[in-house]
Amino acid sequence: MKAEIIAVGTELLLGQIVNTNAQYLAQQCAAMGIDGYFQTVVGDNEARLKQAISLAKDRAELIIFTGGLGPTLDDLTKDVLAAFLQRELIMHQPSMDRITAFFEARGIAMVESNARQALMIAGSDALLNDTGMAVGNAMTLDGTHYVLLPGPPREMKPMFENYAKDWLRTVMRDEMPLYSTMLKFCGIGESSLEHALLDLIESQQDPTIAPYAKEGEVTIRLSTKAHSQEAANLQMASTVQMIRDRLGLYLYAQEDIGIEQAVLRLLAEKNATLAVAESCTGGLLSDLITSISGSSTSFLGGIICYSNQVKHELLRVPTTMLEGEGAPGAVSAETAQVLAEQLLILMKSDYAISITGVAGPNPSEGKPVGLVYIGVAQKGQPTLVVNVTHSGGRDLIKLKSAKTALYHLWKRLVE
Amino acid sequence: MKAEIIAVGTELLLGQIVNTNAQYLAQQCAAMGIDGYFQTVVGDNEARLKQAISLAKDRAELIIFTGGLGPTLDDLTKDVLAAFLQRELIMHQPSMDRITAFFEARGIAMVESNARQALMIAGSDALLNDTGMAVGNAMTLDGTHYVLLPGPPREMKPMFENYAKDWLRTVMRDEMPLYSTMLKFCGIGESSLEHALLDLIESQQDPTIAPYAKEGEVTIRLSTKAHSQEAANLQMASTVQMIRDRLGLYLYAQEDIGIEQAVLRLLAEKNATLAVAESCTGGLLSDLITSISGSSTSFLGGIICYSNQVKHELLRVPTTMLEGEGAPGAVSAETAQVLAEQLLILMKSDYAISITGVAGPNPSEGKPVGLVYIGVAQKGQPTLVVNVTHSGGRDLIKLKSAKTALYHLWKRLVE
Repeated sequence: MKAEIIAVGTELLLGQIVNTNAQYLAQQCAAMGIDGYFQTVVGDNEARLKQAISLAKDRAELIIFTGGLGPTLDDLTKDVLAAFLQRELIMHQPSMDRITAFFEARGIAMVESNARQALMIAGSDALLNDTGMAVGNAMTLDGTHYVLLPGPPREMKPMFENYAKDWLRTVMRDEMPLYSTMLKFCGIGESSLEHALLDLIESQQDPTIAPYAKEGEVTIRLSTKAHSQEAANLQMASTVQMIRDRLGLYLYAQEDIGIEQAVLRLLAEKNATLAVAESCTGGLLSDLITSISGSSTSFLGGIICYSNQVKHELLRVPTTMLEGEGAPGAVSAETAQVLAEQLLILMKSDYAISITGVAGPNPSEGKPVGLVYIGVAQKGQPTLVVNVTHSGGRDLIKLKSAKTALYHLWKRLVE
Repeated sequence: MKAEIIAVGTELLLGQIVNTNAQYLAQQCAAMGIDGYFQTVVGDNEARLKQAISLAKDRAELIIFTGGLGPTLDDLTKDVLAAFLQRELIMHQPSMDRITAFFEARGIAMVESNARQALMIAGSDALLNDTGMAVGNAMTLDGTHYVLLPGPPREMKPMFENYAKDWLRTVMRDEMPLYSTMLKFCGIGESSLEHALLDLIESQQDPTIAPYAKEGEVTIRLSTKAHSQEAANLQMASTVQMIRDRLGLYLYAQEDIGIEQAVLRLLAEKNATLAVAESCTGGLLSDLITSISGSSTSFLGGIICYSNQVKHELLRVPTTMLEGEGAPGAVSAETAQVLAEQLLILMKSDYAISITGVAGPNPSEGKPVGLVYIGVAQKGQPTLVVNVTHSGGRDLIKLKSAKTALYHLWKRLVE
């Protein structure tokens, strides 16, 4: 099935927001076996929106709209599509009841324009909005499928995930839908991973094997056509096992989570605590960890030892190690080890990670940009120190370093 | 002038990357007074790209392409446009020389396909690529302007900024181009800011006044038509002064930088040092600061005092303050003050910021999600403690809290 995504909103044409909805929907469609050939962005303008619909109808079998379902007069996606299809707009009573209840519960008078959000095109199926007010629509007419979703991602995504996906699977009845599973890797680059799986990737038929890299992590998506996720999982099990046999050392999850989340789960299972000492990552590692709700169960805190003064005074790295002729310097295995071991003592944690390196853009202590030392200390165990050299700009080196440090802790935790 | 942005790349249709290029170019065009009516995304496919060009030519006077200028056979934007315009592709010798020199310097044999990146459409102007290999193109034919830019943002943006912008200004000769200036605010919400400027915004003619909010900061863009940036600045000076008179307390820069950068500049000017103690922001404040190259001049480091244990043992917050019946608790003015003052002593810094609050999703110590206390300590001066309540999800509350803390330090630094 060929699809076109139409994002409606003048704020996109002005560059005030980035079209992340198109990316999300493109990913979701690809994962379901729906082909996207075009994406269009059009403003809150009746004539141009109509033109975009007419064009999309000629070149796609499925048109997914995002945006323009809100209460204001700018929000005209439903009106324009209804006129294009020569259908009426009717009230979706359950949505109207929800909107009324919302205002009543807060003791606020409802502005009449809010009722617009409960309108739907006659003959369409309602897609419920669990996180907002505007009801979504889905319908098939003259062989074209139309799906209308709200613009705000926190409304659009749950509506797609919980309602639109099932609706699409129903209209794709004849073509058995694709189901996927995600394998998440850290500590290995995309090209090394592809190399290890080259024979599988080249001979792939069913399931399909699609690797792609996100910063500091690599994902493989396996997809197969099946009648349900459970049936798909069974069909993919032997391929998953083959990949696990080869790359199990780097495979930290079989679902779409970050390595920080995998690490926090293992720490919670072991009832263990963690502290971090960050030099070149400058707080990013802690920020990644604390972006996960519930991280306070295991994460005690850390030291941002950005200056040598802090490395020496708080974490007891000897001055002779940090500075002077022939000293290893702040960016060294020796310093990484002292940082991690002293942190373990200072914070009384079960595990401690240290990171020290050169984030750039300029070399430091004569050491090249991207060189990073990572220490992983554990109570009663020898400390692990590794070094890696990352490429990229300052932000990317910080991110890759934080992810690599989490990977080495993860490995220690699963050993 | 009406413009259409065409992003070329199957990776966009598959959702592997998000189309940030379209946002950047839309912003740039809006700032220059060029109207964007449509944005299109099309894959690496000859027939469909040709269709997109043909359509855009009918509805726009300027077509900006991104992507498809690379070395591989997938990269066909130049080929397809040249065929569409019935023009030859010719070699741009300076680009070819640069590519050859790159490979020679690294002692690598150049694969022939790399020469494709030096091709340009006959009769077009070359747009140099200072950060990559593929040369850009710009030309006018039959009243339509075509600008071809590479896909990777780190190549596309410098090419647009340094070459395409001037080229566009030349072809816009008849319409005097728009020039802008940015005013950046922190510590005030978008609606309060709009309210303070309502009369100016409602009566705006020249310059135009466009406020927009980014997370934790607000920007006002003033724009006016002029023959140069200098002339524009003169035309806008009295409006800038009027805004400064009303909102100077929140106006931290007259250029597009973050509050962290403004703070770092002031610290460097004063030759002063900074340390931070982060509880609910969990490292994000340090991460923001250390994302600025050169931050090590002023930033010593910090303590991520996520647990009460760290607050007590490293930063000497009394246990009786943190826990027990009637204690102020970790999220309190008292704790924020001790954290900032003890940090100043521990780190021997000139300034210290502390942040403690409830990032959510659940309340803590019976305190509501979003409540945050910020301490700003300075050697020899009384400590400032403020509290704010932020709305939003966990990540947004962290970000707004970090930005607000930087704002209060900025205010102290300019006092």
